[in-house]
Amino acid sequence: MLPYNIHHVAIAVENLDAAIEGFADQYGFEVLSRETVGEQKVNEAMIAVGGSHIQLLEPTDSMSPVGRFLSRNGEGMHHIAFAVADIEAALKHLKEQDIQLVDNEPRIGGGGHRIAFVHPRALGGTLFELVEVGDHG
Amino acid sequence: MLPYNIHHVAIAVENLDAAIEGFADQYGFEVLSRETVGEQKVNEAMIAVGGSHIQLLEPTDSMSPVGRFLSRNGEGMHHIAFAVADIEAALKHLKEQDIQLVDNEPRIGGGGHRIAFVHPRALGGTLFELVEVGDHG
Repeated sequence: MLPYNIHHVAIAVENLDAAIEGFADQYGFEVLSRETVGEQKVNEAMIAVGGSHIQLLEPTDSMSPVGRFLSRNGEGMHHIAFAVADIEAALKHLKEQDIQLVDNEPRIGGGGHRIAFVHPRALGGTLFELVEVGDHG
Repeated sequence: MLPYNIHHVAIAVENLDAAIEGFADQYGFEVLSRETVGEQKVNEAMIAVGGSHIQLLEPTDSMSPVGRFLSRNGEGMHHIAFAVADIEAALKHLKEQDIQLVDNEPRIGGGGHRIAFVHPRALGGTLFELVEVGDHG
């Protein structure tokens, strides 16, 4: 189960519009897509950078996971998402090693992709997301 | 000055060998290159993921920037590096906007590339690095 790409690096921000403006002014980036993911209580924007993306996450609820992250840490890097061809196989591989997961089964994330999070205690103090991009490209 | 790629995402780790083993076991990744960057007081390893990289940083000195980061935060994401074609032009563009920089002039980083860091106060609470990969590929 070799992830074939860094699908995105997510950054938690207080204000999505201000962050989008900052990325445009400082780096010339344009937003590729923007959506509200109700289940995760975030407004998110994707910025394409080469074959990868920066994902900006603004909480819609201060008690949501991203909202609590912001209260604790302020703005900053939130997680790294790896693109995998088969998320079921990837989760099986991690479970066989007793790796601590946030999601034991895939769920639907931004863009309609199947996703699952791996607990930051598993590796490098870093929250990793697995994304099966599938037919969505 | 549009960065054309996420060159790498850096993760600060306590023990480089253990982290390399974790990335191999959990994700099947192999190390592409490994070096000690004396100026930054780190042992670093690069892992290729698609067209980008995960960079693992182990401090060689607990009072170095990465050493102090680990003392404060524990292991975790440290910075995002954007590949730029012309680092002088990129820094000029940021200076014209009075963006707070860590490095006002490029210096030599890992792989012999010209690099410069942008202060996390500038955008998204995130330490960004600019990397001019140049002839090194």
